[in-house]
Amino acid sequence: MAAVSSPRSILTPASELPVAVDAMGGDRAPGEIVAGARAAAEAGAPILLVGDPGRMGDTGGLDVLAASEVVEMHDDPARAVRSKKDSSLIRAAEAVRDGRAGAMISAGNTGAAMASALFRMGRIKGVARPAIATIIPVPGSTPTVLLDAGANAECLAAWLVQFAQMGSVFARVRLGIANPRVGLLSIGEEPGKGNLLVKEAHALLAGGRAGPAVDFIGNVEGRDVMSDAADVIVTDGFTGNVVLKTLEGSMKFAMGAVLDAIRADGVPEDAAAALLGRLLPLAGELDPDSYGGAVLLGVDGVCIISHGSSSARAVINAVEVGRRAVADDLVGQLRQAVSGAEAPAGAAG
Amino acid sequence: MAAVSSPRSILTPASELPVAVDAMGGDRAPGEIVAGARAAAEAGAPILLVGDPGRMGDTGGLDVLAASEVVEMHDDPARAVRSKKDSSLIRAAEAVRDGRAGAMISAGNTGAAMASALFRMGRIKGVARPAIATIIPVPGSTPTVLLDAGANAECLAAWLVQFAQMGSVFARVRLGIANPRVGLLSIGEEPGKGNLLVKEAHALLAGGRAGPAVDFIGNVEGRDVMSDAADVIVTDGFTGNVVLKTLEGSMKFAMGAVLDAIRADGVPEDAAAALLGRLLPLAGELDPDSYGGAVLLGVDGVCIISHGSSSARAVINAVEVGRRAVADDLVGQLRQAVSGAEAPAGAAG
Repeated sequence: MAAVSSPRSILTPASELPVAVDAMGGDRAPGEIVAGARAAAEAGAPILLVGDPGRMGDTGGLDVLAASEVVEMHDDPARAVRSKKDSSLIRAAEAVRDGRAGAMISAGNTGAAMASALFRMGRIKGVARPAIATIIPVPGSTPTVLLDAGANAECLAAWLVQFAQMGSVFARVRLGIANPRVGLLSIGEEPGKGNLLVKEAHALLAGGRAGPAVDFIGNVEGRDVMSDAADVIVTDGFTGNVVLKTLEGSMKFAMGAVLDAIRADGVPEDAAAALLGRLLPLAGELDPDSYGGAVLLGVDGVCIISHGSSSARAVINAVEVGRRAVADDLVGQLRQAVSGAEAPAGAAG
Repeated sequence: MAAVSSPRSILTPASELPVAVDAMGGDRAPGEIVAGARAAAEAGAPILLVGDPGRMGDTGGLDVLAASEVVEMHDDPARAVRSKKDSSLIRAAEAVRDGRAGAMISAGNTGAAMASALFRMGRIKGVARPAIATIIPVPGSTPTVLLDAGANAECLAAWLVQFAQMGSVFARVRLGIANPRVGLLSIGEEPGKGNLLVKEAHALLAGGRAGPAVDFIGNVEGRDVMSDAADVIVTDGFTGNVVLKTLEGSMKFAMGAVLDAIRADGVPEDAAAALLGRLLPLAGELDPDSYGGAVLLGVDGVCIISHGSSSARAVINAVEVGRRAVADDLVGQLRQAVSGAEAPAGAAG
């Protein structure tokens, strides 16, 4: 297991800015979102609720940035971002751009959230494509950062090199892993295994193109995602999204099957209770809500993308993730990692 | 759930041919392989053991086809097939080609097994690329056929159309599903979602290019693999292999975590026993050994590729799978499906 440094605890002044919370995005919006935002505020986090004041219900006196439109889950992202300029999503991204908020979070339309952040905040200089970094919980071990989890269905090898750089920074900042081991997702451990994209990316990464700050350990496989084999797993957004959803489906299946077995006739009630007492914390650890959402790495601002089914608890966690990203200057560190590694191929590693 | 027809029980004369078993391939070869072959023979299956007589131990009087070389797990497939012409793998494939065996099975080097079958048996006329079809157990529902599970890391859209045809036939023949629902693995249900390959394949499949015998239901996602959403899931060999290994890893993780919870202090012994009694059959259903291996569809002969860690039980099941494939004339049905659908695009569906 990689070394885990102690978490930072001193907030920098920038972190005094509120977190812009898209109150209208998500399957359970605005109810659960507003509830989560209020709870986060009660716990001390400055919040800027973004949405339609007439539809948000009781906001508990939180600051509100009014936005009359809502990007729906089924809206086409590109079209929504062009046509719904007064949507909560666009306004939240603008709040970050304009320095009114330190970070934005949304549980709404993922594609539209990416597009809003990208078009309003812009890219970090030198970043070819932003990527979605997701944290895969691995109970009993350090979590695994998987990226890209869906921002770019089609990728170039050079983008994967940047994902390795950004994923390393994210694992360090977010998870406190001092020297994250970065693996490239493939279908065999040998360098020659994989599709054309992976073979090319492997050659670049093995040649040190990502710079000395990236500890590239070579190819990893699907079975390594839920293990301690790597701290960061780099892949294209198509494969990453398929992996993420495959994991969700299989974990849901496994948990369902185990609960059925526990509830079946013949298992004594007290035993079932004892077992549930041990399994529920595990289910909690595996719950995507516990990590508060994925982060869009590479845009010039902090954008947290939460699960569409986000609960109030997920919102509380996402607010915390956003504040920590600001306090730790995640964007500044990403900027440094991407620009600092622009040395010629072979200069390092 | 799709309708399941009654299994066929009458063996055709071709199925009287023995199954060629590569005795030297697999992590547990030759011990477990020979043991499985002997058990299968005792249960009535004609067997042709292929391997080095001096290294196979007691073969129990089974027919043996001598082969002096062994393709190792780490051998480069293309090179091994060229240089080890007297290997058990090559000889097994030749036995099928020459009509000495009805089917071959190997738990050895997957790439070399594919190459042996491809180069010795050849392709079914009209098949662009053979694909590995794997059966994903879904306890409580019909299993899901996933292909390609790793034969072709790089694919063209037209190949995926053939995978849909071949997967349909396989689900019908192997699993008795009368009208298999075929899904295309993507990162969203809408036709516009996915990478370039998937978008192009979607257009071909939705346009009826696979012919009227393929019931194309559109895109499916990673979470649908372990569900009843589709009977056949079509994807490129890179994504398919990643999905398969991700599932293996997550199921191993989940089972390990649950067993740890059951064995922990505080769970009464009788309750743990009751629960294990319910979970072990589930684990058995999820065990890849229970389906006896993947099938290489598209070569002109029956080639069963078993898990590298195959036990004697896996070999017994693989022999049965091979015999059934011969009895049901899987290859003939695949030939018909591929040639029969060579109608112009849009002629059907």
